[in-house]
Amino acid sequence: MKLSQFFLPTLKEVPSEAQVISHRLMLRAGMIHQTSSGIYAWLPLGFRVLKKIENIITREQDKIGAQKVILPTLQSADLWRKSGRYEGYGKEMLRIKDRHDRDLLYSPTAEEVVTDIFQSHIKSYKQLPQVLYQIHWKFRDEIRPRFGVMRGREFLMKDAYSFDLDFESSKKTYESMYEAYLRTFKAMGLTAIPVKADTGPIGGDLSHEFQVMAPTGESTIYYDAAFETMKDEDRTFANMSKLYSAADEMHNFETCPIQGDQLKSSRGIEIGHIFQFGTKYSEPLGAQVMGPDGKMVMVEMGSYGIGVGRLVAAIIEAHHDDAGIKWPTSVTPFDLGLLNLKQGDAAVDSLAMELYEVFNTMGLDVLYDDRDERAGTKFADMDLIGLPLQVIVGSKAISDGRFEVKNRSTGERFLLSKDELIKFVTDAYNTCC
Amino acid sequence: MKLSQFFLPTLKEVPSEAQVISHRLMLRAGMIHQTSSGIYAWLPLGFRVLKKIENIITREQDKIGAQKVILPTLQSADLWRKSGRYEGYGKEMLRIKDRHDRDLLYSPTAEEVVTDIFQSHIKSYKQLPQVLYQIHWKFRDEIRPRFGVMRGREFLMKDAYSFDLDFESSKKTYESMYEAYLRTFKAMGLTAIPVKADTGPIGGDLSHEFQVMAPTGESTIYYDAAFETMKDEDRTFANMSKLYSAADEMHNFETCPIQGDQLKSSRGIEIGHIFQFGTKYSEPLGAQVMGPDGKMVMVEMGSYGIGVGRLVAAIIEAHHDDAGIKWPTSVTPFDLGLLNLKQGDAAVDSLAMELYEVFNTMGLDVLYDDRDERAGTKFADMDLIGLPLQVIVGSKAISDGRFEVKNRSTGERFLLSKDELIKFVTDAYNTCC
Repeated sequence: MKLSQFFLPTLKEVPSEAQVISHRLMLRAGMIHQTSSGIYAWLPLGFRVLKKIENIITREQDKIGAQKVILPTLQSADLWRKSGRYEGYGKEMLRIKDRHDRDLLYSPTAEEVVTDIFQSHIKSYKQLPQVLYQIHWKFRDEIRPRFGVMRGREFLMKDAYSFDLDFESSKKTYESMYEAYLRTFKAMGLTAIPVKADTGPIGGDLSHEFQVMAPTGESTIYYDAAFETMKDEDRTFANMSKLYSAADEMHNFETCPIQGDQLKSSRGIEIGHIFQFGTKYSEPLGAQVMGPDGKMVMVEMGSYGIGVGRLVAAIIEAHHDDAGIKWPTSVTPFDLGLLNLKQGDAAVDSLAMELYEVFNTMGLDVLYDDRDERAGTKFADMDLIGLPLQVIVGSKAISDGRFEVKNRSTGERFLLSKDELIKFVTDAYNTCC
Repeated sequence: MKLSQFFLPTLKEVPSEAQVISHRLMLRAGMIHQTSSGIYAWLPLGFRVLKKIENIITREQDKIGAQKVILPTLQSADLWRKSGRYEGYGKEMLRIKDRHDRDLLYSPTAEEVVTDIFQSHIKSYKQLPQVLYQIHWKFRDEIRPRFGVMRGREFLMKDAYSFDLDFESSKKTYESMYEAYLRTFKAMGLTAIPVKADTGPIGGDLSHEFQVMAPTGESTIYYDAAFETMKDEDRTFANMSKLYSAADEMHNFETCPIQGDQLKSSRGIEIGHIFQFGTKYSEPLGAQVMGPDGKMVMVEMGSYGIGVGRLVAAIIEAHHDDAGIKWPTSVTPFDLGLLNLKQGDAAVDSLAMELYEVFNTMGLDVLYDDRDERAGTKFADMDLIGLPLQVIVGSKAISDGRFEVKNRSTGERFLLSKDELIKFVTDAYNTCC
């Protein structure tokens, strides 16, 4: 993609309304545009990151056998009356009347609808377990939307729903989702700490929040240092749920089982929440199947959310510096930035275009800054939008055939010949996730 | 994917509420589930087709330089008041009040929002042309939703918006979109005829509808036989817009410039609509840029829609028989179906599993019918859901090492050894789109 044609409205000034770093950087990098209070359009750069995150989530959900669907954003109030949540949900639920004066609502979550679909079609224990999920827009009419996409009103969420024959099987599904969440966040360059949580308005028996460690997080969490050092293959529910972790308001230094260096703390951002809630929805909505003994059984359910838009913000909170964003390679909107410092100089233009073609042919997504701008502007914009590698083509490339490459994350710079450069880039993208 | 674990609620009976074939087949094949009048959930099989179609559209939009974004479903009424459409749109527009009593609406289209985003950020002719598009849910409160997803209330649409400096450049953008549409529909196994159209509520100067030929279409179109025989490389705007085509109500046998065998007719389903409307939205919303001469110019715009969910129905209308759907390979939910006719027989099970692994390793999406069901049920379900190839593993596979393969579209059957089978499948998927 050539930057001269790309819709990338970067801002030099820090927008005054943005209080947290991710919000400021997302506005400055031209990733999002606010259209109403708490409602954002995702512009091309932001959309690309959102899509990368969706793909990672989809891969990990598919791996554990979850099946993707898409549920309506507008749902009938009647279903929600059955579960008792229509009245209980409060003003965060956006209630709507259609032209025939029927009550609809904009889905803030989808337990009711998916349970109703399940009960219409699944009648036998032989078809269990089932996990259905979607990545779709939700609406919660927050009284005071803030922090950009971190607490918006219209937001993208992954929500999964599980149906099992009995408690034991439901617990196994819960555990496999817990482990999938850890893999999902890790693949995005995030360390996530699962914290036992209250079940809140969703209700139920067992619940974990996943907190991403970021210095600018909203709350403090305390946790066992083993969370950080544990090997990937050991990150099972059995191992991890034994370790201590607690949110600020639950932590008590007196009674905490771990002490000293073993006890760590960090600011955290909640990016996922999982629930096992038994028959809370299957009972009122009549989701029962015939069991092996011929008797009807209410199915045991769970639900599992990830804030997809919020993840974009969380990744930025965890990966940035004063100059801008530093994307992990797995979620970067482009693999590398190519900067032409002498736009209009025929020799430099032709060399830069040649590299652009080479990188494209290698299957890389390249953002080529071919604008007629000062070098300083190009450097600043490229640092701001945070692509992992910057390849700089200037007069040095002509005079002694060398290109500067900058690693955005480490700040390291290399001066490479064309062959070395191609090898460097190849290695960087073969060895990464 | 093993069918025993797949959420595929096929129906034997024809649902009485469904009047058109695609609606009946989508319900019977377990692709969709109605949750309210004109509102559907897309179940796993349907979702897979939707995603394939999205990917083809995305590829062709990206090719012409359109940039993907995602715009909010809920939009502020104020923007729509500026363009004059808030009052004019009528009851099809779903009007909503949020908790602070502000007027919102559920986007039925997005000219206003995208024009406002454009004018906030693009200030110079140097940044033109720009084409932004999204694939996202819309809502139109149809008084009488019908024909399933063909005329639903909440529906998935590709909508693109173009911004050019002048009429000539805008016309070029329009033409490249017109050609992209032809490639898009062709890649899905559809012959689309562009028909000059009224501009209707979107307004403007130039407009084409794209009609898919299907015997069950809603309206009749008349067109030049050359549309069908023209080579792909000749399918340019310049060539095609010269040919005669007209909707029923516009066609007049007396004045029609073509006659006899050259004049063909077919039922048609509208699956796309493109508009060039000049400054209709840029003027009220103030979308102007500085031109090369330093003067401010209102940008020339167009918008370009494709009904994504409706395309699923249109493909089925064009590709089915009495037994069910016949998916074109480019949009099939799975590449092939593997039928085990002796589920529970250890030798057959192990052979079927071996093939399942082989096909998966080849990178194919396989639906393996491992259910404990009669052969008749398996054949009927597989014909109904319409995967292009069926590979049948039964006692013949054990007794003389031969597998039956059925081409769903042609009905041809082949009896092949394992090696021949693998070669056959490899060839089928290498030579296809």
